[in-house]
Amino acid sequence: ADIPIRFGIIGCAEIARKVSRAIQLAPNATVSAVASRSFDKAANFAKANGFPPDTKIYGSYESLLDDPNIDAVYLPLPTSLHLKWAVLTAQKKKHLLTEKPVALSVAEFDQILKACEENGVQIMDGTMWVHNPRTHKMKQFLNDKEQFGQLRTVNSCFTFFADPDFLKNDIRVKPDLDALGALGDAGWYGIRSILWAADYELPKTVTAFRNPVLNEAGVLLECGASLLWADGKIATFHCSFLSNLTMNLTAIGTLGTLHLTDFIIPYQEHQASYTTSTKPGFNELVTGWVQLPSEHTVTVDLPQEACMVREFASLVANIKKNGAQPDKKWPTISRKTQLVLDAVKASMEKGFQPVEIVG
Amino acid sequence: ADIPIRFGIIGCAEIARKVSRAIQLAPNATVSAVASRSFDKAANFAKANGFPPDTKIYGSYESLLDDPNIDAVYLPLPTSLHLKWAVLTAQKKKHLLTEKPVALSVAEFDQILKACEENGVQIMDGTMWVHNPRTHKMKQFLNDKEQFGQLRTVNSCFTFFADPDFLKNDIRVKPDLDALGALGDAGWYGIRSILWAADYELPKTVTAFRNPVLNEAGVLLECGASLLWADGKIATFHCSFLSNLTMNLTAIGTLGTLHLTDFIIPYQEHQASYTTSTKPGFNELVTGWVQLPSEHTVTVDLPQEACMVREFASLVANIKKNGAQPDKKWPTISRKTQLVLDAVKASMEKGFQPVEIVG
Repeated sequence: ADIPIRFGIIGCAEIARKVSRAIQLAPNATVSAVASRSFDKAANFAKANGFPPDTKIYGSYESLLDDPNIDAVYLPLPTSLHLKWAVLTAQKKKHLLTEKPVALSVAEFDQILKACEENGVQIMDGTMWVHNPRTHKMKQFLNDKEQFGQLRTVNSCFTFFADPDFLKNDIRVKPDLDALGALGDAGWYGIRSILWAADYELPKTVTAFRNPVLNEAGVLLECGASLLWADGKIATFHCSFLSNLTMNLTAIGTLGTLHLTDFIIPYQEHQASYTTSTKPGFNELVTGWVQLPSEHTVTVDLPQEACMVREFASLVANIKKNGAQPDKKWPTISRKTQLVLDAVKASMEKGFQPVEIVG
Repeated sequence: ADIPIRFGIIGCAEIARKVSRAIQLAPNATVSAVASRSFDKAANFAKANGFPPDTKIYGSYESLLDDPNIDAVYLPLPTSLHLKWAVLTAQKKKHLLTEKPVALSVAEFDQILKACEENGVQIMDGTMWVHNPRTHKMKQFLNDKEQFGQLRTVNSCFTFFADPDFLKNDIRVKPDLDALGALGDAGWYGIRSILWAADYELPKTVTAFRNPVLNEAGVLLECGASLLWADGKIATFHCSFLSNLTMNLTAIGTLGTLHLTDFIIPYQEHQASYTTSTKPGFNELVTGWVQLPSEHTVTVDLPQEACMVREFASLVANIKKNGAQPDKKWPTISRKTQLVLDAVKASMEKGFQPVEIVG
C-alpha cells in the first residue's frame, strides 16, 4: 500500500480540530506533527484530538517546517499570518493546504503562489464543500444543457449570528488578524459558489452593495455585492455575522433551477441533499405547479473535509512519487476567488461603483 | 344570508379566467357581468368559464360601468389602460379590484387613488399570495421576536422562461401595453414580498442592478435591485422572463430564517408549505447542524385568489351595507409597491445610482 502523505499542522485553531480529524480519516494522509507557539498547547491539542502517539510536538512553527519527515503543512493561522508562513512553508519544500481566505489580497496571494511555484509544491485552499460528492452531482446538473440550459443568475447567502464574545474577541473581527472580516470568512464561500456555478468564468464587473456594516476597528461584519458577466449573467451574494445561520445557494438557468440551503456545511455529515427543477410550469389556471422540484440525496461516505484532504494528498503523492508538476486547477480557482474578493473591497472604496475584473 | 357583492369583469384576459373562478368560489361574491370590446368574445368567455346563466354580457366596457346592478369591477386590462378605466370605474361608483401593477407610475397611481377616494370606492390590487393563509402564518413567525428576532435581510426572486411567442406577442413585452415589462409583472411580487417582510416600512434607497435586459422596444425583460433601510436592513430582488420558473423568498432575522420556494403561486392549491429555523447552530466539530429547518404546511380551504376576492368583497360589503369608509390598508400597500417600482426605474435612468424613497 502507498505510504500516506504526512501532515504537519501549524497552529491549534478551532478549525484545525475538524481538519486534523479529516486528515486522519483520509485514506492517503496522516497527522505527523503539530506546532504551536507553546509546546504545551500543541501537546494538549494532539492529545485532545486523538493524534497518533508518535505525532511530533513542536513549540515553534519553524521547527515543524524543518522536520524532514513532513510532506505537507495545514495552515489554519489568521489570514494576516498566511503570507509569512505560507511562503516559508513553500521554501521549506512542504506542500500547503491553507485555510481561506488564502491571503489578504491578490497581491499577497501572488507572492504565496510564486513561492509555491518556485519550490514545486502544491497549494490548495481549505474550502471543503467543493469536495463533497454532492457538489459533483450538482455540477452535472448545471452542465446538462437539456436539464439546466444556460446559467442566467446565481444567488448565494451565508450568514450566521455571532455572539457578543465572537464580535469582541474572534480573530475574524480583528484588523490585525483576519482583516477581511465577514467578507473573507463568509463571503469567500458566496463568491466561490458563484464562480463554481459559472464554471469559474470571472465576472466582468463587481459592484458592492451599499450596506457594509463595519465594527469600530473597521472590519466588515456584513456586506454583499452583485457580479455581472459580459453575456448578461448576474449573481449576488450576501454575507454577515449579524443574521441567523443561513446558507442558501440558488443557480437558475434558462431551463432549470438548482437550489440548496446547506451548501457549505451539509445538515448531515454522511448524506447531503439538493433540489433541481426543469421547466416545471403551471397547471392550466395557474393555481399550482405541474411538476414539483425533485430532491436528490447523495451518500457521503467520507466527510467533505476528508474528501478535500484526500484530493490534496493525492496531488501531493503524484508529485512526490511520480515527479508530476503541481496541479494548477485549485490555485487558479483560489486566485479567482481572491480576485473577486479584492474587487468587492475596491468597489466599497470607490463609493460602490462597479470594479472591472482583470483576470 | 348576506347578498354577495356583484362583480363585473372588464376585459377577457387570461388572468381573468383564474380570478373569475375565484369570484365564484368566494362565499361573498358573484360574477354578474363581463365586458369585452367584442360582444361575442365576452359571451364566449362567460360560457367557457361557466358563469351563471344570468350573467350580463356587454360589448363595451362603458356599458358594463353603466349597469346599476354591478357593485365592483375586476380590471385585468393591460397596465397602460388602467388609468382611464380605473378612474372611470371609480367615477361610476364601482369598487375596483385591479390587476397589478396598478399603474405605470406613482403619478398615475395617485390619480386612480384620488378618483377612488373622491367617489368613496374601495381599491385593491390583485396580488394574490398575500391573502394565502400561509402568508399570515409566515408573518406570525416574522413577528415573533424570540423566534425570528429583528429582520436583517430579504432575498426575493421570481423568474420564468418565456417562450418565443410570449417574447414576441405578450402584452408584457409591449411598450404601449405593459410598459413596465418584467419589472411590473414579476418584479411587483419581489418588491411586495420585501415590503411585506419589512412590515411595509419603506426602504431609504433603492439601487437597480446594472444588468437590465431590454427588448428591442425598450421593455424590461430582466432586472433587479437592492433596497436599503436606515437601520441597516438590506433586501435584493431579481425578476426575469428569461430564466427557469423560480419563486424563492428568504427573510433572515437576527435569530431566525423564513424560506420558501413557491411564494407567489404555491405548488398545490389546497396546501402550502414554508420552512423556518431558529438559532440552528452546528455540532461540536462543525460537521453538521444540530437542528434542521422545520417545514410547516398550512391547509388552504379557499384558494388564495378566492381569499383575495373574499377580503375585497368583505370591505365592499362593509361600505355598501354599513356605510363604512373604504379601507386604507390595501391601497397604502399598493402605493408603496408602486413607489419602489418607480425608484427602480429611476435608478436605472440615473445610471444605477441610489434613489431616495420619499413616502
